[in-house]
Amino acid sequence: MIRAQDIVTQLTSHQLTPNKSEGTAYAPVNIALIKYWGKRNSELNLPITDSLSVGLRTLGTQTRISICAGQDQITLNGLLLATDHPFSQRTSRYLDLFRSSPAMRFVIDTKNDVPTGAGLASSASGYAALVLALNDLFGWQLDKSQLSVLARIGSGSASRSLWDGLVHWQAGTQSDGMDSYAVPLNQTLPDLRIGLLTLSAKAKPISSRAGMKQTVEGLSLYPAWKPMVDAHLAQIIPAIEQGNIQEIGQIAEHNALAMHATMMSAFPALCYWLPETLATLHTIWAAREQGLPCWATLDAGPNVKLIFDQAAQADVERLFPDVQIVRPFGINLP
Amino acid sequence: MIRAQDIVTQLTSHQLTPNKSEGTAYAPVNIALIKYWGKRNSELNLPITDSLSVGLRTLGTQTRISICAGQDQITLNGLLLATDHPFSQRTSRYLDLFRSSPAMRFVIDTKNDVPTGAGLASSASGYAALVLALNDLFGWQLDKSQLSVLARIGSGSASRSLWDGLVHWQAGTQSDGMDSYAVPLNQTLPDLRIGLLTLSAKAKPISSRAGMKQTVEGLSLYPAWKPMVDAHLAQIIPAIEQGNIQEIGQIAEHNALAMHATMMSAFPALCYWLPETLATLHTIWAAREQGLPCWATLDAGPNVKLIFDQAAQADVERLFPDVQIVRPFGINLP
Repeated sequence: MIRAQDIVTQLTSHQLTPNKSEGTAYAPVNIALIKYWGKRNSELNLPITDSLSVGLRTLGTQTRISICAGQDQITLNGLLLATDHPFSQRTSRYLDLFRSSPAMRFVIDTKNDVPTGAGLASSASGYAALVLALNDLFGWQLDKSQLSVLARIGSGSASRSLWDGLVHWQAGTQSDGMDSYAVPLNQTLPDLRIGLLTLSAKAKPISSRAGMKQTVEGLSLYPAWKPMVDAHLAQIIPAIEQGNIQEIGQIAEHNALAMHATMMSAFPALCYWLPETLATLHTIWAAREQGLPCWATLDAGPNVKLIFDQAAQADVERLFPDVQIVRPFGINLP
Repeated sequence: MIRAQDIVTQLTSHQLTPNKSEGTAYAPVNIALIKYWGKRNSELNLPITDSLSVGLRTLGTQTRISICAGQDQITLNGLLLATDHPFSQRTSRYLDLFRSSPAMRFVIDTKNDVPTGAGLASSASGYAALVLALNDLFGWQLDKSQLSVLARIGSGSASRSLWDGLVHWQAGTQSDGMDSYAVPLNQTLPDLRIGLLTLSAKAKPISSRAGMKQTVEGLSLYPAWKPMVDAHLAQIIPAIEQGNIQEIGQIAEHNALAMHATMMSAFPALCYWLPETLATLHTIWAAREQGLPCWATLDAGPNVKLIFDQAAQADVERLFPDVQIVRPFGINLP
């Protein structure tokens, strides 16, 4: 059994002495168009399928890291966390992989530009920014595919947050996961818009990690998930190449609903949806029947993200006045 | 390709002269604990999987049939229907299979004791009662497995409505479907209660027939459905033999949620659930976490049916004051 520590040692070659006083980095959150759901190795976060995402560019995590003695000092959004805070504990456990000696401790200041409760996984941008900051601090000069491997060990979807734009995380087949990293796609979709709808800001009752396990391990419809993802990838890559946002939206919505369907078919059933989630989906479906080109995607939580072309933006804002709209590819200069 | 007419001719041997002035029959509706979802032959309603149901005994269809000339006269719940009413048209099309000559017409008076809009498929009890009434009228003296074949041609789940109690519809493998009929199970569950919750009485936006087709034919999680049904049958039959209502409820809820999951994973997605459906499911799940032994099942519609032991009845009624409770096995004499 290959351990996370083996991978870190192999990539960093024990280079765990700071190169400078402080490492800094920023990484964007990402929204999966083809979802990551199910691990073949839970320590290394090796996925069962490929996944594909778009980064949200202006929403992400900014992290500064330096070393100290005593204990890790983790500041999240301006608040120094107690050492027994779940965020501190998970971060410190990950940082254990990068200490030259047990006495080596880190000072981390991390800030999420992620709207609270919008169902954006800040762990993705968080671990990507942390790995980039460590690379800066220690001067590893690793390439991004190597950093993607390290980020993946922190949180699976973090492997995709090393880049802006469209990113394809290849599941890989090796047991050490050295071929399981993300690669950016060349294509841009300047007219693509992502709309964030916050339906509930309550913490989800079950973590994605536990949810995946429950879906994959028991009797469920999960066995049909991989063939579906394979088919969706084969459809979405040409759609991206053609800049066909309608087709991308269709495939992404189908994929997201199918991911939630795998959960609802698990035992016990796993249902992140609230009545408001379903009401929002019915609203989108009804609007689409009336001609509005807008699609939904949902992660392991109750909130809905919209996928649409900038041409539909005014109509989307009329339908959902509270929507927060992101341009994943920035200002499209004429 | 074997046609429905071939099956009817084979079973009735052209015996299409009334034996008496009027045929009459009653058949109960049934609630599937293991669902029928997906056809291998849509003219003969041959299913892809077995299914298993419990009849609701006191809720069903009473039908009288006689012959006449001119045109079919179909009275539903006391109202004579126009010949272009969808119910008339579907019934007449089915009756075409049983005319000795095109001039032979039927007078049908059918009454459903089914609460309007509770999501009970009156087509199941309707076609079962119709076939029983035809058997009475024509004096075929067919056995119930043969009548189950004839009822199935009218509506798949009608194959199970020839009996009260627990009924197992065997999918069969023959292309003519002569081995695809239901058989009653010997076991009774005197303490079993079914609760009917009417959340929406609106007609469903897409028929079960069309929904199945959409789920089975496109890219969906449906390929994992048959193995799941096989596993559920292997679990529920011993649970029935042991009279274990808790286990039966668990399996039935898992199966129903998985059926809806196959629909949500279809393209376009098929979602019979309304926000109220999901709110009701969350209420049941929360109550169950507090110890209430009550499970849900849902057919191709937004309404929820509850499965519980009579011991939980008072608590179920407190939770759902509008619930309509059915005793599938009648009064349990001491």
